[in-house]
Amino acid sequence: MGRWQPDARGRLAKAALELYAEHGYEQTTVAEIAKRAGLTERTFFRHYADKREVLFSGAADLEALIVRTVADAPRSAAPLDALAAGLDSVAEVFTDQREHARRRHAVITAHAELQERELIKLASMASALADTLRGRGVAEPTASLAAEAGVAVFKVAFERWIAPGEERPMQQLIRESLTELKAVASGA
Amino acid sequence: MGRWQPDARGRLAKAALELYAEHGYEQTTVAEIAKRAGLTERTFFRHYADKREVLFSGAADLEALIVRTVADAPRSAAPLDALAAGLDSVAEVFTDQREHARRRHAVITAHAELQERELIKLASMASALADTLRGRGVAEPTASLAAEAGVAVFKVAFERWIAPGEERPMQQLIRESLTELKAVASGA
Repeated sequence: MGRWQPDARGRLAKAALELYAEHGYEQTTVAEIAKRAGLTERTFFRHYADKREVLFSGAADLEALIVRTVADAPRSAAPLDALAAGLDSVAEVFTDQREHARRRHAVITAHAELQERELIKLASMASALADTLRGRGVAEPTASLAAEAGVAVFKVAFERWIAPGEERPMQQLIRESLTELKAVASGA
Repeated sequence: MGRWQPDARGRLAKAALELYAEHGYEQTTVAEIAKRAGLTERTFFRHYADKREVLFSGAADLEALIVRTVADAPRSAAPLDALAAGLDSVAEVFTDQREHARRRHAVITAHAELQERELIKLASMASALADTLRGRGVAEPTASLAAEAGVAVFKVAFERWIAPGEERPMQQLIRESLTELKAVASGA
């Protein structure tokens, strides 16, 4: 068990989410997660600080990806077009992750402390995107408003994507939400 | 001191914010807040559960006001127009509260735990507004997107309103942010 394990990180995350769903988040121990994944506790702690981090470690990667994509959008792209490119890149990462995302969401909505952490993650993303837009020369308050609107589109599309029975790809739901936001904004 | 005090609640809030600014939030005790307000600790606890609640007790009133105003908007009003009416009603309440709001904001941004609470407050407002829009017959995902956009406008306008040196009334900043959101949404 001490040797290198291909995708130990992914196996640990999968095992953790299964156990959180089966026995509850509080009741699950790191020892159980490691055992289910066929790995040692030591390996667990090489990848995650604790069992909560299994739920949130992807958030930083996601933020980095969307920020980089927005930063790299053509200079001529309007703020919301640059954000749309960023959201598209995120949607690609989520493909095939729907069941995992549903399990994760169920754990998070059942725990106030985890919901708070999720809100902080979204606020951090909005703040990073506003920074990125300012770096592209977008003035305030446009940068902050566009970033908040982009995160709102992501949030609403994500919630639709993980809804029971939903089968449409996330990219489609993001595009529909973006279209809907434009309709809302122009309708008032 | 045992007798009824006119606006004890407001005096306690003012005293608390002054002390948080002068000595720090952690260092301030309920006894000191009561003393500064010329009231007893017992009176403090009749109005607030603890010193944290002084910072957040207004949030529920604010949410109730905006929800009621959105619910009461003319049936013909588009979602964002109904939300704009709600935001206007909130702006009125904030008039003459700018210094208090600045002090409160300084305390909150200095404490991660208070920032989390503030994010929860905003998420709760978005959720309540989406409910209210659904109650007006607005379908999903329009209701959620409009509500999130409305909260984004509020958040950005509020941050501008309390910025150092800013003197324009909040109502004006809310209207400008709303116009800006429309421009962002139509520009992409």
